Amino acid sequence: MQDIEFTIEKGRLYILQTRNGKRTAPAAIRVAVELCREGVITKEEAIKRIEPGQLGQLLHRRMDSSAKLEVLAKGLPASPGAASGKIVFDADEAERLGQAGEKVLLVRTETTPDDIHGILAAQGILTSRGGMTSHAAVVARHMGKPAVCGCEALKIDYANNTVTIDGVTYPQGTVFSIDGATGRVIKGEVPMIDPELSDEFKELLSWADELRSLKVLANADNPRDAQKAREFGAQGIGLCRTEHMFMDPARIPIVQEMILSQSLAEREAALAKLLPMQEEDFYGILKAMAGLPVTIRLLDPPLHEFLPNAEELVVEITKLMLQGNNPEELAEKESLLRKVRSLAEMNPMLGHRGCRLGITFPEIYAMQARAIFQAAARLVKEGYEIYPEVMIPLVIHVKELDKLRKLTEETAQKVMAEQGVSFSYKVGTMIEVPRAALTADEVATVADFFSFGTNDLTQTTLGFSRDDAEGKFLPDYLEQNILEHNPFEVLDRKGVGKLMKMAVTLGREANPNLKVGICGEHGGEPSSIEFCHQLGLNYVSCSPFRVPIARLAAAQAAVNNK
Amino acid sequence: MQDIEFTIEKGRLYILQTRNGKRTAPAAIRVAVELCREGVITKEEAIKRIEPGQLGQLLHRRMDSSAKLEVLAKGLPASPGAASGKIVFDADEAERLGQAGEKVLLVRTETTPDDIHGILAAQGILTSRGGMTSHAAVVARHMGKPAVCGCEALKIDYANNTVTIDGVTYPQGTVFSIDGATGRVIKGEVPMIDPELSDEFKELLSWADELRSLKVLANADNPRDAQKAREFGAQGIGLCRTEHMFMDPARIPIVQEMILSQSLAEREAALAKLLPMQEEDFYGILKAMAGLPVTIRLLDPPLHEFLPNAEELVVEITKLMLQGNNPEELAEKESLLRKVRSLAEMNPMLGHRGCRLGITFPEIYAMQARAIFQAAARLVKEGYEIYPEVMIPLVIHVKELDKLRKLTEETAQKVMAEQGVSFSYKVGTMIEVPRAALTADEVATVADFFSFGTNDLTQTTLGFSRDDAEGKFLPDYLEQNILEHNPFEVLDRKGVGKLMKMAVTLGREANPNLKVGICGEHGGEPSSIEFCHQLGLNYVSCSPFRVPIARLAAAQAAVNNK
Repeated sequence: MQDIEFTIEKGRLYILQTRNGKRTAPAAIRVAVELCREGVITKEEAIKRIEPGQLGQLLHRRMDSSAKLEVLAKGLPASPGAASGKIVFDADEAERLGQAGEKVLLVRTETTPDDIHGILAAQGILTSRGGMTSHAAVVARHMGKPAVCGCEALKIDYANNTVTIDGVTYPQGTVFSIDGATGRVIKGEVPMIDPELSDEFKELLSWADELRSLKVLANADNPRDAQKAREFGAQGIGLCRTEHMFMDPARIPIVQEMILSQSLAEREAALAKLLPMQEEDFYGILKAMAGLPVTIRLLDPPLHEFLPNAEELVVEITKLMLQGNNPEELAEKESLLRKVRSLAEMNPMLGHRGCRLGITFPEIYAMQARAIFQAAARLVKEGYEIYPEVMIPLVIHVKELDKLRKLTEETAQKVMAEQGVSFSYKVGTMIEVPRAALTADEVATVADFFSFGTNDLTQTTLGFSRDDAEGKFLPDYLEQNILEHNPFEVLDRKGVGKLMKMAVTLGREANPNLKVGICGEHGGEPSSIEFCHQLGLNYVSCSPFRVPIARLAAAQAAVNNK
Repeated sequence: MQDIEFTIEKGRLYILQTRNGKRTAPAAIRVAVELCREGVITKEEAIKRIEPGQLGQLLHRRMDSSAKLEVLAKGLPASPGAASGKIVFDADEAERLGQAGEKVLLVRTETTPDDIHGILAAQGILTSRGGMTSHAAVVARHMGKPAVCGCEALKIDYANNTVTIDGVTYPQGTVFSIDGATGRVIKGEVPMIDPELSDEFKELLSWADELRSLKVLANADNPRDAQKAREFGAQGIGLCRTEHMFMDPARIPIVQEMILSQSLAEREAALAKLLPMQEEDFYGILKAMAGLPVTIRLLDPPLHEFLPNAEELVVEITKLMLQGNNPEELAEKESLLRKVRSLAEMNPMLGHRGCRLGITFPEIYAMQARAIFQAAARLVKEGYEIYPEVMIPLVIHVKELDKLRKLTEETAQKVMAEQGVSFSYKVGTMIEVPRAALTADEVATVADFFSFGTNDLTQTTLGFSRDDAEGKFLPDYLEQNILEHNPFEVLDRKGVGKLMKMAVTLGREANPNLKVGICGEHGGEPSSIEFCHQLGLNYVSCSPFRVPIARLAAAQAAVNNK
């Protein structure tokens, strides 16, 4: 399609210039699909004509462009979609109001894993600090919630529960709207348009499904997200993280009890309380995905993430010491602080986490495996077809996986005997540390599948802590053109990609049945998906809202790399 | 040599059993050297008969074994050698007494980089926590100072400046002795025996020098260590770290001024004050190593390491707030805390450090390059033959090295023009992040040398933060036989070694003149030295006190891998 500029002078037509015409995503899809239906272009050509990045517009609610907007400020378009709600400065308050049926926007300088319950309860997230890979941005994209980040015009005053923008102060409860596609922060409520999955779009995606060889799975941690993923065409769950389940406010006290245990018996008592809760988690997600594989990753983050912050404790202790009127509370806080300190780490990314927890505390992984298999047994009895896959994180040595595979298999055998049913399952590993890729020939001998955790693999291969790089030096690296892209968004083919290629080659040589996929954020990014296709992976897994984009990108990769 | 057990019964000799005889290091050396001199065995055989690990005994002062000792406790033999001195619980006090000519032992629960000046001033280090790779142990081994670590029997009371062992309390100033070879902590002073470099030992090492192909260099940060290294036969300095120079208490205020600068002009003013100090540092070490190469690594650690601790600031601020009588000091501390927080990192190992500092603050690296070249110019004028090599840390991309190489070359040109002399120099890089090894073909095009930083390369390749792994899960990994050795002591050939091999092959293909060495702690460990020989490295570099061990191990590697 061309935009043609012309003039007619003295009855004569002059064509002045012509350029490719721009069109909205719905128009581009309709043109491509109709041209194909009329036999003018092939399905392959129709697929190639759509820019996958454009599809984001269609998969999220957006602001009615005809509405009059009072734009207060602009931040980074961190996660697409639009939302309105009362502004709230605290995750607990967001949760309280959200549970009471109110629509809220969580407004913070930045978010941390402690805010997860507030993020879950909010319609959208607005932060004054942090970039496209800040915690708020990553979590919001993953949850498919709109977010505007790094909006520096916001001056948040937590003490008074207000935010000031351009000298005007807004109290908690003021209604704001955010537009995650453009980064705009707007006063008041704005009319929204729901996402349109037109018939043409569905038809285009069905052609994509015929053409692609990569399967598309989704990352989802709860039945609701799994359901959404299924609606968008996901062929399974490639990553179900179990740590968000631990973060649930109702469970945190039990999780803390487990961590603070002084003996194995105490720890097992706490784990016994968590078991039925975990079983329900897995029951729900396996049921929502009946007929399709569900890859469940055992506990990954360091245990100190579940404990209170040391610095806040220090402040409380200092106050208690100076006031001197509550020696018991002081002693208790001091004891808690000692435990927090003993678990604190210099570099938690490279610390006591992932399968290292399973090696030092096998009872934690045993509880999780039992929860998975008890849920599986119930579902089999209820007549569901289920395909659980147990994924061991952060493996660096075949012996780790071997030990934890045995633990998983023993647990499965016990549950099958107890319940009198049988079910099949797989055991595999994340490939997210260079040593796992370098020794993939050994690791593959005890793995049914590999799943590249390219977020962590990028961190270790480049020596970039994502949280630190993004805020400190990565902007300079991009500006000075040392790196072409943010390596957490677009896969670094020369470095990380080289390790992936080694892992695929070595792994399949050692185990020809090995299934290989990717579950890092790159699994939803078109150029990275193309690279995964070139490597011959079996699947990509991405956030539910990126599944249609991944289906199209996978088809384009197949068409372009024939 | 055999120990033979025999009996004579009724005039008849019965030989009951025989086994290899054990002997001390001096005896083993004398036997091997004399057998060779007499023509019974070859030089190769003489070399092979000595266990390099045994030589540690000969290179450090040791306790007179005939003395009566009152052993109070036992910890880990963290760094060989023996020392006596007054116990002191604070690095500043250790430094004060040390400068006043007193012999002190620094006693701490554990040490941090803030204690460096106290460690430097002390005869030896004693800690109640931490393992063989704790900060105290690593720093002490590097400095060649005796250390006993993880001696849990010590109950240190910082508030009262005492230590209690088995119920007995000893005040600061009590004389203790420590034996870093056995981990013993002894009351009072103990007679010592100085290291013996016997003529036989020297002869054996001269044979080793004939046989080995690997050069042996040393890691040294000051002229005194460089001199010691030279005495032990080092053929140059493979790693001169510049951060210890920044930690000098006289300079810390200027370094902090530089970090806290609000503008480039302020930062350059602080750097201008550091320049003459750095020039003196480099003048001293280049002069001590005249005729030999000196590899100087530009600033590596994250800047927040030079600032006060956030938690201590929080305590001070909380107190000031509650007391409410000093608003100015409060405001000042709060401002400092904000800066400390803005520089704080989640994972400093993977954060804003190494050449990332040189990319974001080129003026820092420019000052250091100028200091090196101004020192070089002075020495050339004084008639010394000097070989400075500028080493850029933490490179992951050829463009980083390319930019910083240009900055270095421009600085050298300027200094030569200003001083009217010329000198030659090299510019190279550490290979300490997987991506550097994976893209070594590109990096080598702008490098004169590669130096494997296997401490960091082990951390990133295995995803092990050394500080965290050692204290948290590594003991379990060794006990459960998942890992055979501590990978920070013995090089992990399958993982880290595979990356090294790729880097050597790719690097030399792209640049046949590339010099390749290792400067991680593994450079002084016999099995790792053998691997370096097999890879065809040009040199190993290790702590001065390990140079004789490395000379022997390099010769054994050459003999065993013919």
